[in-house]
Amino acid sequence: MNISHIEHIGIAVNNLDESIKYYEGVLGLKCYSIEEVADQKVKTAFFMVGQTKIELLESTSPDGPIGKYIERKGQGIHHIAFAVPNSSEALKQAEERGVQLVDKVSRKGAEGLNIGFLHPKSTQGVLTELCSKE
Amino acid sequence: MNISHIEHIGIAVNNLDESIKYYEGVLGLKCYSIEEVADQKVKTAFFMVGQTKIELLESTSPDGPIGKYIERKGQGIHHIAFAVPNSSEALKQAEERGVQLVDKVSRKGAEGLNIGFLHPKSTQGVLTELCSKE
Repeated sequence: MNISHIEHIGIAVNNLDESIKYYEGVLGLKCYSIEEVADQKVKTAFFMVGQTKIELLESTSPDGPIGKYIERKGQGIHHIAFAVPNSSEALKQAEERGVQLVDKVSRKGAEGLNIGFLHPKSTQGVLTELCSKE
Repeated sequence: MNISHIEHIGIAVNNLDESIKYYEGVLGLKCYSIEEVADQKVKTAFFMVGQTKIELLESTSPDGPIGKYIERKGQGIHHIAFAVPNSSEALKQAEERGVQLVDKVSRKGAEGLNIGFLHPKSTQGVLTELCSKE
């Protein structure tokens, strides 16, 4: 699988502007990009922290995955994303090793990365993303 | 505050051995240390992923913070820890900026680091740790 680093941490928030204020004003981080991912029904804000990004996620619709998550669990850390050389191959490997997949093949995510999720049932409750540039 | 990187991600698990098997056998990471932190009533296992550690946390008692967390929310990502030059100063800065603190001054955590937590009420649901070597 060859995970090189944690690509990002996804955090579900109610209000992107309010959270950007906290991450910039209190923690002193700098938002470098805001992007809407229409098919995931989210607006995202990115911060670089060393080699890992913080990805804040605000739902653009109550029936999107983040909207549903917040309704069930409240705001908080939503997922962890590991950088791999090839996400489709890594997903296949995970499945061969007994992991239930959310995505059988990788798809386009924020920042043009190829991404896929492992199901939290197979990962002790941690929604886990594998992502790659290729 | 001068956050340099994400020091670690804390993940609450039911069974450390079972989770180590997953992180090693499926994700291909390597557990380099197992440590008990008696005053936090946890047993921890560490994995290095780039410049960030994964810290798995198994409660050694149902009335410890991780035991209570899992009873309420289930297994999953528990907290995010940012590396700062001086955690006591960073805690003071956070308080001056309106953040409610769990720890007014830093205390010793796993791996001998000086650590302190911000309250999730002030951080949009994200239990946030600040830690430093000094």
